[in-house]
This record gives sequence, structure tokens and C-alpha cells, in this order.
Amino acid sequence: MVGYAVIGDWGTSNLRLFRIEDGQIVARRDGPGIGAVGQAAEAALADTVAPWLADGVPQSITLCGMVGARDGWVEAPYADCPADADAWRAAAVRFDWRGAPTAIMAGLACTGTDGIPDVMRGEEAQIFGACALDPALAQGRRLIVLPGTHSKWALVEDGRVLAFRTVPTGEMFALLRERSTLGPKDAVGDAVEEAAGFAEGLARAGDGAVLAGLFAARAMRLRAGRSADWALGYLSGLLIGGEIMEARALLQADDGVTLIGDARLADRYARALAAQGVVSRRLDGDACALAGLGYVGEMA
Amino acid sequence: MVGYAVIGDWGTSNLRLFRIEDGQIVARRDGPGIGAVGQAAEAALADTVAPWLADGVPQSITLCGMVGARDGWVEAPYADCPADADAWRAAAVRFDWRGAPTAIMAGLACTGTDGIPDVMRGEEAQIFGACALDPALAQGRRLIVLPGTHSKWALVEDGRVLAFRTVPTGEMFALLRERSTLGPKDAVGDAVEEAAGFAEGLARAGDGAVLAGLFAARAMRLRAGRSADWALGYLSGLLIGGEIMEARALLQADDGVTLIGDARLADRYARALAAQGVVSRRLDGDACALAGLGYVGEMA
Repeated sequence: MVGYAVIGDWGTSNLRLFRIEDGQIVARRDGPGIGAVGQAAEAALADTVAPWLADGVPQSITLCGMVGARDGWVEAPYADCPADADAWRAAAVRFDWRGAPTAIMAGLACTGTDGIPDVMRGEEAQIFGACALDPALAQGRRLIVLPGTHSKWALVEDGRVLAFRTVPTGEMFALLRERSTLGPKDAVGDAVEEAAGFAEGLARAGDGAVLAGLFAARAMRLRAGRSADWALGYLSGLLIGGEIMEARALLQADDGVTLIGDARLADRYARALAAQGVVSRRLDGDACALAGLGYVGEMA
Repeated sequence: MVGYAVIGDWGTSNLRLFRIEDGQIVARRDGPGIGAVGQAAEAALADTVAPWLADGVPQSITLCGMVGARDGWVEAPYADCPADADAWRAAAVRFDWRGAPTAIMAGLACTGTDGIPDVMRGEEAQIFGACALDPALAQGRRLIVLPGTHSKWALVEDGRVLAFRTVPTGEMFALLRERSTLGPKDAVGDAVEEAAGFAEGLARAGDGAVLAGLFAARAMRLRAGRSADWALGYLSGLLIGGEIMEARALLQADDGVTLIGDARLADRYARALAAQGVVSRRLDGDACALAGLGYVGEMA
């Protein structure tokens, strides 16, 4: 029998497990999100890892994400910011599960300079992983952004997370697109129109009029001949541009921004940042998450 | 038989008709919104006024609102801003219906100084009515605000509407409350908590961080012991405060703001305006709408 470790990210929507042998990812298994399993979290984990358990007890199991929330499997605390990777790792909840040393990683909590508290669970693994993958990122005052349903903007100084802010831009866009009177229901996927709308949304966000710019998604169709795809792009640009304006005012870093996430969304943010004169670079989300959970080998 | 006229507002959600005899409102009848009746608009109108038609043909029928939209009953144009009450009235569509001279009032259209077009249908009757009810409002450069699902901010100079802007604040609040992960589902209607949240939302909006302030509705519950009612009030204050910040930057008037609408919502806006140092006064929405449609008698 070959010894192996299990690391993974168990978020609200997905369980993603990686099997590590000799420092290499050798297998991956996906399971249900923690939000879907409720009280049956342990059984869901057991089901998902069952084929691996047949090979013997893992050397370790390390999980990050909403698995550690109050409604998750085993509640892990929040490490308070400022927090470095060591402080975060020390805050994990550790126990034996079916004979394997198991760690549920902590989340992070902070209080902004404006007194507003914030929390994250899962993204901190990517942030600390990014600093591990790129030592230059762990020097000076850096801004790391994880775009998404709830975008996270983290201010990192010399590898410590000083503070962060959640901006629910992706959720707002989905609500506008699917549930509002402003989101077009007849978009056909015209990328040129979408890009033109995105650019105009970015420009409007630059005027500081995000709420007062929303209705234009409808009025520009009615009065200026714009298309449904244009309107979708416009709403996206307006929200992302507004997010960037506001978050940069809250969290001021030395230079550009490091984006962590999937290529399509990161590219969108890179364009929006460039429109505000900010240089950005991108790191792969999976690579950062695995590095944060201690995996330093090649990506599978 | 006593002669009578019919005036009314036929919006997306409601048909509200008033019967005028000798300059007095003597009866009111409600019917379905234009959004609900589709191709059957004429029949819905006939059904609603049927008891009055039994008394004879009206001297006139005057309707404003979405009844004149493309998907309404009879399409009326938009009068282009700047527009005064005379120009607006001249743009109405007039025809005979069942022997009665009938007018479907025009909407208003404008293009903002930032190039963004906007439209309204129905609110213009209240705006011109307000200027008729209060001649002081028709002098100088005034800001008239109609809070609601789609708030309208109109800049009026010497009785002419120069420009206006729609801000979909009420729709955004409803989406956040009912459809988002941020809106509390367990509010119990505690007015003190709600008011405290509202005040904090106003303060955050003043920081210019509306998008970056949204997640606090959840984080403050999780980390600072705030209640569901507090969170609802906070979201309301954040959005209304943000609306006011943005709209005032777009449309600059001589002095305070005139609010037209129902007392509860207008009071909320008055508090939000006061938090930004702006004096406001309130006019009744029905009185303004009727005055805009030519009714100058006492309210029923």
C-alpha cells in the first residue's frame, strides 16, 4: 500500500478532494457541497472518499471552506486579522476521523478601518497559497482579489492579511440579470455587443454613479437602440467597475492587483482594472488553494 | 343626468379612475394594471367604468401612465425635455372612445448631461401637478423626487422639466430582501432595530461604498450581534443614502428637495436627505397626479 494524503476544498456548492502521493496529485474526486448535505456531512465525505479509504487510512485529511462554518460539518474558528499563514494554520480544528489525523482549516475575520466586520472561509487558503507560490507577493503591501459571487479583496502586508472586504458583485449581477426588470431576457450571446456594453458600464462606474447608472440598461435599449447583449455587458461593467472603485478606496496597496480565479472572470476584472489605470496579474485558483493547503508539487 | 369627466392613472400594477362632477371628485373606481391585461386593455377599461357609462357619455376621459406605453392600450409619444406642462399636454394622443373625447397623456424623455437617456410615464403628471399646486415650486431650479420601485429625480427650472434620472432603489431593495443571501428572512418588525440599521446604512452610503457596504448586512449579524431587523434597515439606508448621494451629484438644484409620494416612504427619504444636510418637504402623490391631469378641486 502506498501512503497518501487527502486535501480539499468543501464549499457551499462543491466538495473537491485531491489525493496526494509522494508529493504529487494522483487522483481527484468531487462530491456534494456542504450547503446541500446538512446534517449528513460526515456520510457525504465518507461516500466521496470511500474508494480511497479502501486503500487504507490516509496519512492526513485537510479541508478548507464552508465545511468549518457553524452549519458545516465541524465548526472551526475564525483567525483574526492581521493573520499570517502560521496563525491561520494554528487556528485549525484537528481531530482523528476514521484513524486519520484530520484538520478543518479556520476562516479569517477582520474589522475594517471603517468598523465593518467581514469574514471569509476558503478564500484564505488561496491567499496564503498565492503568497507561498510567489514570494514577491509576500513582500510589501499587496492587494489580492478573488472575483466571484462574493468577491474578496484582501490587503496583504509582508504575507499577513491585514484586512479584507467582501463585495457581492456576482450575486448582484445574477439578481439583475435573472430577477430584475432591468436585465435583458433576450440576449443571444453577441460578444462584440457585450464588450461594447461592458466598456460603457466601466465608464459609468467611473463617474461614481452605480445605482443611478442601472436604469440605463433599459433606457439605452428603449431610446438609443442598444441590444440585449449590450445591456448585459453594461450591467456587468457597471457593477465590476463600481466594485473596483469602492474597494480600492478602502484598501490601498503599493502597486497593482493580483487576481486569483478562473481565466474568464479574471480577464474581465483585468480589463476593468486597466480602465482605472491599475495593472493586474493572474494566478490560478486551484494552484493557489492547493498551495495554501500545503501542496507544493506539480498541478495534475 | 349630471355631466362628469373621468381622469385617472393607469400604471403597470393598478388602474385608478376618478369621476369629477362640478369640479369635485364624487367617485373612484379601481381596476387591473395595464401590465396584467395585455391585449384586453380596452375591455378592462370598459369593465371598470361601466357603472359610470350607464349614467351617460363622459365629457372627457384623461389617462396617464403606462397605458400609453408600447405595450399599453394606445401608444402615446414621449415629450422631449426640456418640457413644460403645455408641451406635455400638447403631446397627448387624443381620440374619441365610445363618444367621449379621450386623451392618453404623453410620457417624458430626456438625455442626461452624461449622455444617458431616460424615460418616465405617469410621474410627469405628478411633477407638473406639483408645480400647479405650489407656484413657488415653478420658480427657480428645483429638485422633485418621487421615491419608489423606480425612483424618479427631476430637475425643474421655472416649471420646465430640464432632465431627470431613474434610480431603481426600491427594486434593488426588494431583490436583496427577498432573493439574495444578504437579506434576512427572519425579521420580526422591530422598529427600533430597523431604525438603528437604517441610520448606520445612511452613514455607510455617505462613505461612497454602497456595493462594498452590502455584505455588512450579513457580517454585522455574524460578528457584531446585529438583528435581522437591523440588517433590513441597514440595507434600506445604504441604498436610499446611495441613491441620494448619486442623484444629487447628477442634478444640482437651488435648495432643498420636494418629495412626492406616500407618507411612509417620503418620511424615510426625508430622514436620509437630512442626514446629508438637505431640507425636504412633502406633497401628496394623489393630489399632485390629479392636479397634473387638470383637477383643481378639493381632494375627496
